Amino acid sequence: MVEIRVAKKLVGANAAPAAAVRGLLAEKRVLAINVLGSPGAGKTALLEALASRLRGSLRIGVIEGDLETARDAERMERAGVKALQITTGRGCHLNAAMVLDALSAFDLGALDLLFVENVGNLVCPADWDLGEDFRLLVVSVTEGDDKAAKYPPMFASAHVLALNKTDLLPYVDFDPEKFLAEARSIRPSVEVFRVSCRSGEGVGALADRIAERVRAKRAGER
Amino acid sequence: MVEIRVAKKLVGANAAPAAAVRGLLAEKRVLAINVLGSPGAGKTALLEALASRLRGSLRIGVIEGDLETARDAERMERAGVKALQITTGRGCHLNAAMVLDALSAFDLGALDLLFVENVGNLVCPADWDLGEDFRLLVVSVTEGDDKAAKYPPMFASAHVLALNKTDLLPYVDFDPEKFLAEARSIRPSVEVFRVSCRSGEGVGALADRIAERVRAKRAGER
Repeated sequence: MVEIRVAKKLVGANAAPAAAVRGLLAEKRVLAINVLGSPGAGKTALLEALASRLRGSLRIGVIEGDLETARDAERMERAGVKALQITTGRGCHLNAAMVLDALSAFDLGALDLLFVENVGNLVCPADWDLGEDFRLLVVSVTEGDDKAAKYPPMFASAHVLALNKTDLLPYVDFDPEKFLAEARSIRPSVEVFRVSCRSGEGVGALADRIAERVRAKRAGER
Repeated sequence: MVEIRVAKKLVGANAAPAAAVRGLLAEKRVLAINVLGSPGAGKTALLEALASRLRGSLRIGVIEGDLETARDAERMERAGVKALQITTGRGCHLNAAMVLDALSAFDLGALDLLFVENVGNLVCPADWDLGEDFRLLVVSVTEGDDKAAKYPPMFASAHVLALNKTDLLPYVDFDPEKFLAEARSIRPSVEVFRVSCRSGEGVGALADRIAERVRAKRAGER
C-alpha cells in the first residue's frame, strides 16, 4: 500500500534529528521520556503527579504535543515545571525535528529530566523515535483489556507500562491479569506499574524508578 | 511539513473509491455509518447494544477495522449481525478502497444498515471519507472533558456524537456541559446522545434515530 511506503521514507528522514536529540541529551546528561497513550489515558495527570513528587529533588522540563490548545503546557506550568507546547494542527504524532527545535527553548544544563508527552494516539507515534531514553506507555483501565492485542506496535515499543486509573477497576469490565499477560507476550521485558492519580497508588514507585534512571544517566551509565 | 503534503495527496486518491462506495450504497439504499473514536471509547460495545435493539427490524452488517485481531468482528457476529474484519497492520485508519473491497463480501440487496467501525484513533480517520452517510463519534466520559478542544478536526467532521459510559460520571472529573459546549462550538449542528451500555441510558434513543435515518434512505430521501 502506498501510504506505508511513504511512512517508511518519512521515518527514515526522522533518524538524523533523532540522533541529534539523543546526542544533546547525552552531552547534557538529561533523561528524556517519551510519554505515549490514547486520548484521555491520563498522561498529563500522571505527569502532574510525578512532577509534584520529583520537583523537590530533580530539575524537570516538559514538552507537550497536542493538535490544538496549550492547556497541557499550562497544567504542567502550574505543577511547577518548565513547559513548552507543540501544536501539530492535524498531525498525529510528534517527530524528532519538532523535539530538536523545542529543545532550544530549554537550558539543558539546568535540567535533569525531560518528559515529552506525545499526541494522544495509540497507533502512529509508535513509529517515531524522538531520541528518548525510554518510552512510558500509559493505558487506562477504562480502555478495555484487549488493547495490547489490538495495538501491538505501540506495546512492542514500550519500555515502561503504567496501567492507570486503577481506582476505577470496581466499575469497569477489565481483567488486569489478562491485559498484562497479552502486553508481556508482545514485550516480555516491559516494566509494569499499576497507578492511580486519584488514590495515589503506584505513583511513588514509578517516581522512584524514574529518579533511579535519572541518577544512572547523570552518573554516565548506559 | 512534508507529511502533510503527502497526506493530502493520499486523501485525493481516496476520492474515487469513496464515490464508488457512495454510489453502491445509494443504488442499494443501504445506510452506512462511519463509527469513530479513541481506543476504548466503547465503539464495539455500543454497536453490540444498537444491533441487539435493531436486528429485529433491520438487516445489519458491520465492517470492523483494527490493527490486529478479529475480536471485534467475532463480538459482532455473536450480536447476530454479519461482520467482516479488516486488519490494517500498522495502518492508523480505514480508507475508502478498503471499504469498497470489503463490500464485495456482503449481499447489499439484503442489507438496510452498515456500520463501519474505524480504527481507534481520534486524529487520522477524520481525514478519510469512506463513502458513509454520516459519522458517529463515540467519546467516553473517562477521556476528559477537554477532548473536543484538543482534537478539533475529528469533532468538526462528526454528525452525531455519542457521549458514552455516562454510568461512570460519578467517579470521574468530567463536566458534560463544558465538553458539549466546546463540541458544539466546533460543530454547531452535531446531534448529541448521552449513552451508557451498562445502564442502557440513551441507547434506545440513538437506535430510534438510526432507524429513522434508515427509513429515510430506503424511501429515497436525501
